[in-house]
Amino acid sequence: MGGAAGLAARRTGAALQVVGVANRSETIEKARRLGAVDEATLDLAAGVRDADLVLIAVPLRAVVEVARGLLPHCRQGAVITDVSSCKARIVPAIENLISRRRDAAHFVGSHPLAGSEKSGLDAAPEVQLAGALCLLTPSADGEAYQTVDGFWKALGMKTLRISPEEHDAHLARSSHLPHLVAFALIAAQTERSLSLSGSGLRDMTRLAGSDVRLWSEVFAANAAHVSRAARELGEELVRLSQEVQALGFPDAETARERLFRYLADAKQRHEARFPSVESGAEPSPPPPPPAIPPA
Amino acid sequence: MGGAAGLAARRTGAALQVVGVANRSETIEKARRLGAVDEATLDLAAGVRDADLVLIAVPLRAVVEVARGLLPHCRQGAVITDVSSCKARIVPAIENLISRRRDAAHFVGSHPLAGSEKSGLDAAPEVQLAGALCLLTPSADGEAYQTVDGFWKALGMKTLRISPEEHDAHLARSSHLPHLVAFALIAAQTERSLSLSGSGLRDMTRLAGSDVRLWSEVFAANAAHVSRAARELGEELVRLSQEVQALGFPDAETARERLFRYLADAKQRHEARFPSVESGAEPSPPPPPPAIPPA
Repeated sequence: MGGAAGLAARRTGAALQVVGVANRSETIEKARRLGAVDEATLDLAAGVRDADLVLIAVPLRAVVEVARGLLPHCRQGAVITDVSSCKARIVPAIENLISRRRDAAHFVGSHPLAGSEKSGLDAAPEVQLAGALCLLTPSADGEAYQTVDGFWKALGMKTLRISPEEHDAHLARSSHLPHLVAFALIAAQTERSLSLSGSGLRDMTRLAGSDVRLWSEVFAANAAHVSRAARELGEELVRLSQEVQALGFPDAETARERLFRYLADAKQRHEARFPSVESGAEPSPPPPPPAIPPA
Repeated sequence: MGGAAGLAARRTGAALQVVGVANRSETIEKARRLGAVDEATLDLAAGVRDADLVLIAVPLRAVVEVARGLLPHCRQGAVITDVSSCKARIVPAIENLISRRRDAAHFVGSHPLAGSEKSGLDAAPEVQLAGALCLLTPSADGEAYQTVDGFWKALGMKTLRISPEEHDAHLARSSHLPHLVAFALIAAQTERSLSLSGSGLRDMTRLAGSDVRLWSEVFAANAAHVSRAARELGEELVRLSQEVQALGFPDAETARERLFRYLADAKQRHEARFPSVESGAEPSPPPPPPAIPPA
């Protein structure tokens, strides 16, 4: 996601200069080759020193530590954001770091809903930020919020403000649950059924190609909400299995009618939310954002 | 699927002539425009009269009736096949029709695993038959089996022989279950979580855009197997929800390790089955099949 944001920021002119910080020189080489950075360094302090906006794009487990490491090197008034999938633990932890240190920096949590099951720089060119939604957590500093909001909008994203707690409650259902189900759907296959599968199962389990350590951490960081969503879906599937079984019983007409309505309702909600998938048409890309003029 | 097979048969030369039979003249016009047929007619009898191979591509509920309607008009030795998602009811029903009428025709069930959530001729050009798997049910007539097997292979498909009962048992897990889960995953969303979803949920619920009547019929036709697969996955999700909950408890390390292994195993099986999804590379297309020479 860091690479994708760098690529998009350079392409759109959303940043005057993109400086990448990595912990391996191969990553720096690759980022340069991809055109995701103007400059890149292994030196965190040097990398963030002149930044107006610092984007932390590291696995969930490392976000707070990376924030702790870079805060002393940020310039006065710097704005820091992240891209992680859980917010309720991270946002107050980093805000706490900032207020304890009395650093004149600000943090606004970001979650661009435009990932891919692939991680790392190689996946960066495939990530479609334009047109996708980016969730932002509130900030006491209106200007800092506007900086982060303006950055994602300049990349063509829509933005929405949401509290860290609400974020985690809703994303448990809309993002973390689908990931868990993708893994479970593969685990539910026998060797034989897996070999007899087609594009349906492939697409339904694309997310099972995701980074396992990262997703273990997401499930752990949002355990209560994810656990509840998984239990509810599990119970719903057990209920559905009874509905399906009833299709073979004497009063099958009622059961058939009930299942038909259930499926039709779901299809209607799906089409309302993802119309482009139905029509086969891609949503038209947003107009190119204006470049932010030099200060 | 009828349109997709027609397109592919004309493109590859797998058939000398493709004659389409439809029940609406608009469908005939569209099939001609798409290039899915050489000729097309509303007259079933005229359409099948000279056919060596008859492909029944209609919704599950209509397959046996359509077979009953066309059998009297088939030429001596004609081979009939279908494309439907369930086999255990259809195959013996049509074989029964043939043996009762003493028609000198043969039936071999086909199930090309290359569908799309969209139905109808409009979706035909997007269906990728080449490289995908086509399941065939056995036939007492070896020559008839070879005709159907050779047809799908000429379109670039891999084929596999499987009994109708086995087909339905395994496809319940690998195809029917993923469809049911896609609908259930949409039903599990609140209005708010649905609005806060991204490409993950979109791809996980693509199949919820499928034809509801058709899938009600598939679930009904394979009720026992689908019901069992849904119950097992439901119970697995309830179990997983407890595992996830345990990530927040004192002995979280054990729980974390267990969940990590579960996810890693699923990912490994997923990668072994769908390697192209992981590497980002498309599987290389099969070499163009040789055209079947004129008899």
